[in-house]
Amino acid sequence: MSDTPFYLIDETRLLENMRKIERLRVRSGAKALLALKCFATWSAFDIMRPFLDGTTSSSLFELHLGREKFGKETHAYSVAWSDNEIDEAIGYADKIIFNSLSQLDRFGDKAAHIERGLRLNPRFSTSGFDLADPARPFSRLGEWNTERLEAAMGRISGVMIHYNCENSDFALFDHQLGRIEAEFGDILKRLDWVSLGGGIHFTGEGYPLDDLADRLKRFSDDFGVQVYLEPGEAAITQTASLEVSVLDILDNGKKIAIVDSSIEAHMLDLLIYRETAKLPQNGAHEYQIAGKTCLAGDIFGDGKFESPLQIGDRISIADAAGYTMVKKNWFNGVAMPAIVIRRADGTIERIKDFTYEDYLSSLS
Amino acid sequence: MSDTPFYLIDETRLLENMRKIERLRVRSGAKALLALKCFATWSAFDIMRPFLDGTTSSSLFELHLGREKFGKETHAYSVAWSDNEIDEAIGYADKIIFNSLSQLDRFGDKAAHIERGLRLNPRFSTSGFDLADPARPFSRLGEWNTERLEAAMGRISGVMIHYNCENSDFALFDHQLGRIEAEFGDILKRLDWVSLGGGIHFTGEGYPLDDLADRLKRFSDDFGVQVYLEPGEAAITQTASLEVSVLDILDNGKKIAIVDSSIEAHMLDLLIYRETAKLPQNGAHEYQIAGKTCLAGDIFGDGKFESPLQIGDRISIADAAGYTMVKKNWFNGVAMPAIVIRRADGTIERIKDFTYEDYLSSLS
Repeated sequence: MSDTPFYLIDETRLLENMRKIERLRVRSGAKALLALKCFATWSAFDIMRPFLDGTTSSSLFELHLGREKFGKETHAYSVAWSDNEIDEAIGYADKIIFNSLSQLDRFGDKAAHIERGLRLNPRFSTSGFDLADPARPFSRLGEWNTERLEAAMGRISGVMIHYNCENSDFALFDHQLGRIEAEFGDILKRLDWVSLGGGIHFTGEGYPLDDLADRLKRFSDDFGVQVYLEPGEAAITQTASLEVSVLDILDNGKKIAIVDSSIEAHMLDLLIYRETAKLPQNGAHEYQIAGKTCLAGDIFGDGKFESPLQIGDRISIADAAGYTMVKKNWFNGVAMPAIVIRRADGTIERIKDFTYEDYLSSLS
Repeated sequence: MSDTPFYLIDETRLLENMRKIERLRVRSGAKALLALKCFATWSAFDIMRPFLDGTTSSSLFELHLGREKFGKETHAYSVAWSDNEIDEAIGYADKIIFNSLSQLDRFGDKAAHIERGLRLNPRFSTSGFDLADPARPFSRLGEWNTERLEAAMGRISGVMIHYNCENSDFALFDHQLGRIEAEFGDILKRLDWVSLGGGIHFTGEGYPLDDLADRLKRFSDDFGVQVYLEPGEAAITQTASLEVSVLDILDNGKKIAIVDSSIEAHMLDLLIYRETAKLPQNGAHEYQIAGKTCLAGDIFGDGKFESPLQIGDRISIADAAGYTMVKKNWFNGVAMPAIVIRRADGTIERIKDFTYEDYLSSLS
């Protein structure tokens, strides 16, 4: 079991998502930028590059990564740029999107030679989590006041409107885009581009992709804007697993299998959003799958297995690409999962191992 | 503001905690081991080493770090050791503490030449958080069944009982230790050492340190055991701050200052436990202090300042040593805080900066 834990990226599945994105782009005319905040494993960029228009970012380092490792069109967004990073940021960016009018006021002149945009917050969203809801009360994410938006006109050529969150409901998307058209149409008509952000789950099973494409095309035509999408989760959903091994089996009134990983260290969103991992559910043998950190609640969830689990058994935790590798950390000093790609021809390529020296240099 | 963000460790304050630990050790006869899961910033170990007996760990990497960078007595604990790490672990450890009888059965013989222990779970704790409560239902942390404990006797020379969590109530500690004496006394009498774990907030303001020392001495004498404590938070409480700068100021019905840090990336427990940061509260000017990631809920909390905040102002977030640096991560690619020590003579020593290359190599 010495090769676990590792994140296993499946090239074939990644290509399936990429082809859906390509189909959407061709039919709608929208451009698609990978949202690096969700997935930034750059060894997979060669697979993705042909199907995407570029990347978007949420910090200077992500921007730098997008420019250096992905190339193509590179959008720069940050909730707040600092004085000491703005020049470098502008040097990498094709477009820079400011979060607030005050940031545009502060740095807009410096960025006058590239395209500038502003984040528009429509004050509604599809997020079911207050934590992740950009429309929450007093949200700091973007501008909505019409006077403030007007004050930006002339300096900006577009806006970014990120308000979806794993939205798999096309009718809701259609309805909310209609609200944006009604409320902000006068402004949108005077712009060259509109990014609708990420969070549209259009690569999911059964999603009406052509309806989305047609709706985006109509929006684009009606307002005379180039539409951008910023798929994060949609780009990589269902394309990776976290492969772990069983280290110990306990029965304290419930059968528990302890594995060589941790939700806090390796799949942090399970802990933050109090969700459970996607575990096998195809057998009669039920176990709670728990991590190996000291955290009492380091629990992936309950799985059902075809045979009783044994020490050394491999378990595959599904859907482990998004917001996992970008957030992994050295909590408890638990060994960090390697990064592995299963190529379309079946070859297994071990891209990166993390060592004790990496742990040591994460501190000082 | 280019030097922020950084964690600022204050040597003078760290020495104050160390002297309290030393006083406790001398009066009680207990040994104190730093719990690396809470604080593993090894550049501070030279300050701490004279006052502590060694370290305890929760993984192979922490154990390796304790042996290599701290030295002295080195305890090894892990919720589950794997076949491929056990030999290396035993090579570093003075004592190895198994979490379960099955782990002792699996690896006990290999470790027969060093001291072996077992985690005893008394099935009560002082944790107010289910997530962090080792006594939660079906807990996988330690053994409590007397038959199973008996089955370990003869192979183990001690037990580790970690059940406190930021417990600042000496009367509660005294009462619960009494329960342990009553319920497990027969077993404890046949052992050489008992670790009472961490979570006793004995370095806090006003804690009756001498009462604790006397109680530990009585426990030690009554059962003929060497007592160990494993201070984590108690060792470093109030000894560091997170220093940040204001990047933007908004007013969306509430004044918000966005700073160059993030709770998710740099003070993760605030997010996991839905707590707020310790911010200045000494003025009439109130602001919500928010991070710069895309997370809508990336909010440190509300602070009150003596003057209106300005872009570029420095804000000091208190009590940022424990469970911060050990959990920091590259979410959103936000620049990682440097590690800085303010020496007792006032000198500021910048120990470690994290760069774009560090971000890049956190992925692949």
